[in-house]
Amino acid sequence: MAKAIPSRSENYSEWYNELIKKADLAENSAVRGCMVIKPYGYSIWEKMQRALDDMFKETGHSNAYFPLFIPKSYLSKEASHVAGFAKECAVVTHYRLKNAEDGSGIIVDPDAKLEEELIVRPTSETVIWSSYKNWIQSYRDLPLLINQWANVVRWEMRTRLFLRTAEFLWQEGHTAHATSDEAQAETRQMLDVYAQFAEEWMAVPVIRGAKTANERFAGAEDTLCIEALMQDGKALQAGTSHFLGQNFAKAFDVQFLTKQNQLEYVWGTSWGVSTRLMGALIMAHSDDDGLVLPPKLAPIQVVIVPIYRTEEQLEQLSAKIKPLVQALKKAGVLVKYDDSDANKPGWKFAEYELRGVPVRLAMGGRDLENGTVEIARRDLKTKETVPFDGLTERIVALLDDIQQTIYEKARAFRHENTFRVDTFEQFQEQIEKGGFILAHWDGTSETEETIKEMTKATIRCIPFDQEPEEGKDVYSGKPSKGRVVFARAY
Amino acid sequence: MAKAIPSRSENYSEWYNELIKKADLAENSAVRGCMVIKPYGYSIWEKMQRALDDMFKETGHSNAYFPLFIPKSYLSKEASHVAGFAKECAVVTHYRLKNAEDGSGIIVDPDAKLEEELIVRPTSETVIWSSYKNWIQSYRDLPLLINQWANVVRWEMRTRLFLRTAEFLWQEGHTAHATSDEAQAETRQMLDVYAQFAEEWMAVPVIRGAKTANERFAGAEDTLCIEALMQDGKALQAGTSHFLGQNFAKAFDVQFLTKQNQLEYVWGTSWGVSTRLMGALIMAHSDDDGLVLPPKLAPIQVVIVPIYRTEEQLEQLSAKIKPLVQALKKAGVLVKYDDSDANKPGWKFAEYELRGVPVRLAMGGRDLENGTVEIARRDLKTKETVPFDGLTERIVALLDDIQQTIYEKARAFRHENTFRVDTFEQFQEQIEKGGFILAHWDGTSETEETIKEMTKATIRCIPFDQEPEEGKDVYSGKPSKGRVVFARAY
Repeated sequence: MAKAIPSRSENYSEWYNELIKKADLAENSAVRGCMVIKPYGYSIWEKMQRALDDMFKETGHSNAYFPLFIPKSYLSKEASHVAGFAKECAVVTHYRLKNAEDGSGIIVDPDAKLEEELIVRPTSETVIWSSYKNWIQSYRDLPLLINQWANVVRWEMRTRLFLRTAEFLWQEGHTAHATSDEAQAETRQMLDVYAQFAEEWMAVPVIRGAKTANERFAGAEDTLCIEALMQDGKALQAGTSHFLGQNFAKAFDVQFLTKQNQLEYVWGTSWGVSTRLMGALIMAHSDDDGLVLPPKLAPIQVVIVPIYRTEEQLEQLSAKIKPLVQALKKAGVLVKYDDSDANKPGWKFAEYELRGVPVRLAMGGRDLENGTVEIARRDLKTKETVPFDGLTERIVALLDDIQQTIYEKARAFRHENTFRVDTFEQFQEQIEKGGFILAHWDGTSETEETIKEMTKATIRCIPFDQEPEEGKDVYSGKPSKGRVVFARAY
Repeated sequence: MAKAIPSRSENYSEWYNELIKKADLAENSAVRGCMVIKPYGYSIWEKMQRALDDMFKETGHSNAYFPLFIPKSYLSKEASHVAGFAKECAVVTHYRLKNAEDGSGIIVDPDAKLEEELIVRPTSETVIWSSYKNWIQSYRDLPLLINQWANVVRWEMRTRLFLRTAEFLWQEGHTAHATSDEAQAETRQMLDVYAQFAEEWMAVPVIRGAKTANERFAGAEDTLCIEALMQDGKALQAGTSHFLGQNFAKAFDVQFLTKQNQLEYVWGTSWGVSTRLMGALIMAHSDDDGLVLPPKLAPIQVVIVPIYRTEEQLEQLSAKIKPLVQALKKAGVLVKYDDSDANKPGWKFAEYELRGVPVRLAMGGRDLENGTVEIARRDLKTKETVPFDGLTERIVALLDDIQQTIYEKARAFRHENTFRVDTFEQFQEQIEKGGFILAHWDGTSETEETIKEMTKATIRCIPFDQEPEEGKDVYSGKPSKGRVVFARAY
């Protein structure tokens, strides 16, 4: 097996990088911090997009497209928003190149300087709310429920494939409502959509909750999030949904006439998930042999490898396998029959393992005689020989079972790595080992920041299912009414 | 009807702009030359994307994603390529904003100047071929068949919604092959895919042909194109497919080991269509009452409007209509039942006409008694009363018929507006009236340019179905072996 990757216990970070590279998911480009998403990686992202897009449409949203560029003055209109994004902006200042007069090559034409600089969107609230101003006049124009699939740029200094890149792909929902209640319900609804997607499609269990004031989106009144636990014990924020209050409506003067003919500012939300989900998917399930993909997001769900010595044998196998391929396709299964003679079966087995294909069938001469086939599942690495008859139904059921098993495994892992901690000594000890820590917090930013400085742990969220419990802050000892979720995070 | 638009004969250009605005397809943004694609317009684009993407995948292509930014030095590597794009580039020079020290606001941080400027991609050949260098080693890595859906930026001075915007959405295919023949076959195959899409989905007949050397893509050996005729007699280039020869392979040193173990440069193609297709779709079919959409690209194919006086009547109508809606959905028809009481039927009729919904059903009290429904088709503006029974089958057949009728109408229009012209006097006279002119050309760039200067007509293409015919150049009188297609163009 030429493509071996480091083990997780050896070097988790290298395991992640090498896995992405060897499984042909993505790579760094020559442009600092920008990645190339390779075809196999992109095909997983496409499946994510399709599933999410269907869910957005079912909840009444439409897609639209807004400009890549944001005038500097727009970004500045909402004070905390610009403070949050100004430090990591790609800025367009000129609109032309020319040949240098001294013949030294192509240079930026100094005569082509823009009057106002343009920012490559780090997020689109400002440019979208400037459009909403023209789209919204009356309560009849509300709610406005729009989503955009787009690329965005944040000039991160330390980048990591999928998890943190200068350019990334995402969707950003931007909605406008007549009342605060309705906007808050939307904020929660979309977080629930994300949680459902993470759990049912990605097979990644998530905690739903609210961010502390410190961790809120720049310009939001409230930020809700879903948090997942990776195999190295670090948390990963997988999606956020923001209640914007009237902040952007006020910054862009978006008012509407109520039924009672009063002028009021509208209420906003925004919510997004990105190619970061790819990182979560990879890190949540994969093992030392490569990717483990939940069937619902696998570009190839079943691969069939014939094992043969002669051309004649291959023909006999193909005669049996090709109708199976058709039957599987008809049943909606994404199947690949790999009868190429460029590589040996052993190489193919390792390759499809690396790529996380959930089910592998192998069929040789003896199987032909016995009417059997070898079926292997990627998640558990088990193999069995089963009758060829009834295989389609068996595989459809098996894919469901794998989806469920992967999810249950991740849930069990999270359960084993979630700790109730009551002293700061225990806290410091546990945080080094990783996992979610449920601990009391006194509700102040000061304590939150001190704990972060001392342990590198942040409050991932105040969970929605927090149980009321009188207690004392794990650091300050001040009174607390419930536990929050701490962890080190990606 | 509040939303009237100018007629085509009155002011074609204003008709186009107002139609886009009133039908809620798109609008100009505050960012110079960048448009906002509104939900209704975007839903048409999504249908185009889905259909094209399926065709790309059927022909063996995979999607991937490459960086938005191109280092200036990359763009410069292929000489004619940079010459073609340098004059219209958005250039990123800085990566941070900061508060001005004098408190005057947010400014570009002069300390955050990039060492090398980044160009916002106007097209991605350079950044993609720089990746291909690492992806291609041997003939076994070929062909490499990749497509990207992306936004690109060309700093156009005069912009027009959908037809010419600074930022636009498109797909760009980039393929690499072992032989020139194979790359040329790919170039032609993808042009045929575009032609099929234009004719079968957009209902726009196109001429397939090759561009003259003057009109080739910057960096291509050969550019193939499809050309459509708009209702004002101007041509619109709807898609291009380029044979790149070994130009980019040489610029980025992409070589492969042949089966014979020889190092050779690979052969490339690139091909793209963009949101410009939206402009072609609008201009090819629409009329003075609004959009006319071919059913295959209509976000709503059938709208049903109830006509009632009392709540009770509405209930009776709904009891009859709702099962029809279900039956239509089951048959794959995109149907909307508009029972909102915010607007009168007359307003709704005008609104859906404006939006180009292919079929409108209206049902009132008398229809209920008689078991009938009024059915109106958008393209011919005909109405008839038909039995309610058997409606689903009738509508499915009608949608097919409308698709075909729209295409035939556009074909007839093109036929009536295609002229064989043999003298330059005739040429000058005809070009003022518009249409495709089939005329002899001596094959020189000089003549081509002179004709362009004198008449604003360009050679749209040398058509593939050009008949061999001895003749004399319409301007120079020099010998020619066949007619080419001239027109004024968008």
